[in-house]
Amino acid sequence: MSNPFFKNHGPLTLSKVIKSLNINMDVKYIDKEIHDIKDLVSSTENDITFFHSKKYKDFAKKTKASFCITTNALKAELPQNCLALVVENVLVSTSAITTLFYPESINDNFDETASSINDTNFKDKVSFGKNVLIGKNVSIGKNCKIGHNTIIEKNVSIGDYCSIGSNNIIRNTLIKNNVRILDNCTIGKHGFGFFPIKNKNSRYPHIGLVIIEDSCEVGCGATIDRGSMSNTVIGKNTYLDNQIHIAHNVKIGENTIIAGQVGIAGSSIIGSNVKIGGQAGISGHLKIGNNVEIGGGSGVIRDIPDNMKVMGYPAKNIREFLRENK
Amino acid sequence: MSNPFFKNHGPLTLSKVIKSLNINMDVKYIDKEIHDIKDLVSSTENDITFFHSKKYKDFAKKTKASFCITTNALKAELPQNCLALVVENVLVSTSAITTLFYPESINDNFDETASSINDTNFKDKVSFGKNVLIGKNVSIGKNCKIGHNTIIEKNVSIGDYCSIGSNNIIRNTLIKNNVRILDNCTIGKHGFGFFPIKNKNSRYPHIGLVIIEDSCEVGCGATIDRGSMSNTVIGKNTYLDNQIHIAHNVKIGENTIIAGQVGIAGSSIIGSNVKIGGQAGISGHLKIGNNVEIGGGSGVIRDIPDNMKVMGYPAKNIREFLRENK
Amino acid sequence: MSNPFFKNHGPLTLSKVIKSLNINMDVKYIDKEIHDIKDLVSSTENDITFFHSKKYKDFAKKTKASFCITTNALKAELPQNCLALVVENVLVSTSAITTLFYPESINDNFDETASSINDTNFKDKVSFGKNVLIGKNVSIGKNCKIGHNTIIEKNVSIGDYCSIGSNNIIRNTLIKNNVRILDNCTIGKHGFGFFPIKNKNSRYPHIGLVIIEDSCEVGCGATIDRGSMSNTVIGKNTYLDNQIHIAHNVKIGENTIIAGQVGIAGSSIIGSNVKIGGQAGISGHLKIGNNVEIGGGSGVIRDIPDNMKVMGYPAKNIREFLRENK
Repeated sequence: MSNPFFKNHGPLTLSKVIKSLNINMDVKYIDKEIHDIKDLVSSTENDITFFHSKKYKDFAKKTKASFCITTNALKAELPQNCLALVVENVLVSTSAITTLFYPESINDNFDETASSINDTNFKDKVSFGKNVLIGKNVSIGKNCKIGHNTIIEKNVSIGDYCSIGSNNIIRNTLIKNNVRILDNCTIGKHGFGFFPIKNKNSRYPHIGLVIIEDSCEVGCGATIDRGSMSNTVIGKNTYLDNQIHIAHNVKIGENTIIAGQVGIAGSSIIGSNVKIGGQAGISGHLKIGNNVEIGGGSGVIRDIPDNMKVMGYPAKNIREFLRENK
Repeated sequence: MSNPFFKNHGPLTLSKVIKSLNINMDVKYIDKEIHDIKDLVSSTENDITFFHSKKYKDFAKKTKASFCITTNALKAELPQNCLALVVENVLVSTSAITTLFYPESINDNFDETASSINDTNFKDKVSFGKNVLIGKNVSIGKNCKIGHNTIIEKNVSIGDYCSIGSNNIIRNTLIKNNVRILDNCTIGKHGFGFFPIKNKNSRYPHIGLVIIEDSCEVGCGATIDRGSMSNTVIGKNTYLDNQIHIAHNVKIGENTIIAGQVGIAGSSIIGSNVKIGGQAGISGHLKIGNNVEIGGGSGVIRDIPDNMKVMGYPAKNIREFLRENK
Repeated sequence: MSNPFFKNHGPLTLSKVIKSLNINMDVKYIDKEIHDIKDLVSSTENDITFFHSKKYKDFAKKTKASFCITTNALKAELPQNCLALVVENVLVSTSAITTLFYPESINDNFDETASSINDTNFKDKVSFGKNVLIGKNVSIGKNCKIGHNTIIEKNVSIGDYCSIGSNNIIRNTLIKNNVRILDNCTIGKHGFGFFPIKNKNSRYPHIGLVIIEDSCEVGCGATIDRGSMSNTVIGKNTYLDNQIHIAHNVKIGENTIIAGQVGIAGSSIIGSNVKIGGQAGISGHLKIGNNVEIGGGSGVIRDIPDNMKVMGYPAKNIREFLRENK
């Protein structure tokens, strides 16, 4: 959770951190300084962490964090060095605290820091079109092209030999070398993650990035959302066709080929050398193995092991699908 | 059908109104002035109305309109105060007459009235990006943001505390307060409504609006078409993910959550507290109840009563779908 | 394969043409000048052609080309006037040679030739918005409108009475008369065609066009890719709704109606008077007859004969589909 792009507003005193949570707290802790909010594994003794599901109890037992947002049912799993802060809904409370440390990660208003590339140092090293805007904290490598009306918003790093087309909007994104992005893409906006609350939903922070590895191609009209607590990753030499939607925290392997209008829901992990046909949809939190082939139009709602070919809705072995649908 | 945005070119004489319809008419009526074309219920004695389906006969019996476009088979349902104008195709004739009253509602050319926000009074009250354009008949409330390259075309009203991202195009739309629209959306264009005619289809008028209620969020790449004779409505605190298509006359309730790449066809009505999974499609003219859950990838082709969970194509009870597809 | 838009860099000597193919060649041919690469039928004696599948053997027998890229198994079909150049993978080799003749057809970087319409002769004959850019080799007929931020990139011909909306990007496209293109479309980019190679896919050339015939309408957010070796064609008076994806080499007939979010994969041929419901998908290399109706959400994976109504995934006779899914 250490973060290259979102400014950590810590350290904050514990009293400030838990103010919104309505927790009674021994007065001896309230001035303790908390540096960051991190997951169970990466926390240090200066951090606060969170523990919301029994699945993670082995990590919980070993956490180095001094404080942990958790429930009554789970708190016994924590080690002695870690004080449980018991709340009703761990994720809502974690969201509230992350918002304190990273207030800029909640809402994605337009980037007011973006100004004409002609007013920046990039004007001499980048080949660019009309009306290109560049935000703060942007780096661009050598031999790059940036097309007309494209907005490289804040917190973007672009490698060497990249071709970015026209009308794109990119923020909070690491683009490696030899990457090609066509036109009309929106990359790095927050994902569709929030707590549904009547009359006023509550967004949770998205402090992750989008990472696009070497030699990828992204087709026209893509939307690729940045991660919430982890990153959204497009692996090396993976090609995306037009009108594809990649939700937050998705990770795609190398040499994968994804045809038009495919959608991949949040936190799913796609292997390497995978082929996905047009308009297929993949539900959230799934694991798709390496060398998998998914037929066009499929709806994938379960994990798929390596090397399997599937088709259908819900997706099943492709031979079975075709036999049943002669 | 009273209309805040499209200028009514009436009153028109009846002879002018029915000129294109090839109707023989008692000469005593031909100079009668007609103020507007409205539906059976809202018409007054100065208006012309239309009646094309037996479904509406109870409304027809009580209409206050002095003239009604209808068929030979239906005309007997009309009250004495209302003269039947018998045509072969009621909707084509209604379309032709609406075009006379609202000629600007047929074709959506680019808005030639739009000019730089720097040349308008908004420059001092709105936080805005580069290259923002504003058309005529636009109002914007307090504390609003409008991102780079966004075009607020003619006939748009934006409330307070709204955040409009970059590269959006919006026309004929009422946006209430605390609404967030991300990037690359096209909102308020005419719907996909026309009479198919060989070699030259005939568009029918779209004099409705898009209305986006308080605290909504609209994701990247949305297309939301304005209504034809009624409005397209997104209810309070409803959230739309990326790449969603909402067709003309659709009405969505409050607190509804719609995931990426969903499409809702024309005139369907979606309840409140509904959840719709990614890539689901909903056919036109359907009624989806409150608290309904629709699984990702579903194709909904029938009405769904309140509180039901469905999945599949065609969508059915989700338990049945999962049992059949273990 | 004669091409109005992509410059042919021929003639090239045969030794140059086959340099990358590792072919041993009688020295008497190596200085022979090759004018172009064409298909078996249209080649003349100055051209090189390619023959990769037994399906085309009747064309191969009659080709006028002097040289032909082919395989050991197929070479016997060629006539005496045509020398076989035997390679392992005909399409990869053809791609490499086409790249030599048409190097600009491989990568679609942003159009550096585009400049403000105010600096062109079009400023007096076209009605245009703010920030409109025009590339080289563009023609525009009379009474046309081009909306704000639209980029007419290089190699575009627009007929009379066309209305192009805002935020569009168009290249390598012939638009006939009375065509309406709404907003946010990307038309004429290369298709999703490449040879998958580990760590570095190899794109093949796209020297085809997009052709949009008279009186078509293209909705918001469309992506229509140009052809690779043939053209992508939208027939007369065909209407496309919003968010439609048309892949390379697709040919659509006249008076066809395609609803929102439909996707048509590469090289499929759609007839005239066809109706396609929302979110339907059509696989590549299929033939859909005239007067066909395809229900919303369908996944079409087989050819469909004239006059048939289908629905489902995979699509089948609509009556059967509805009976099975009561």
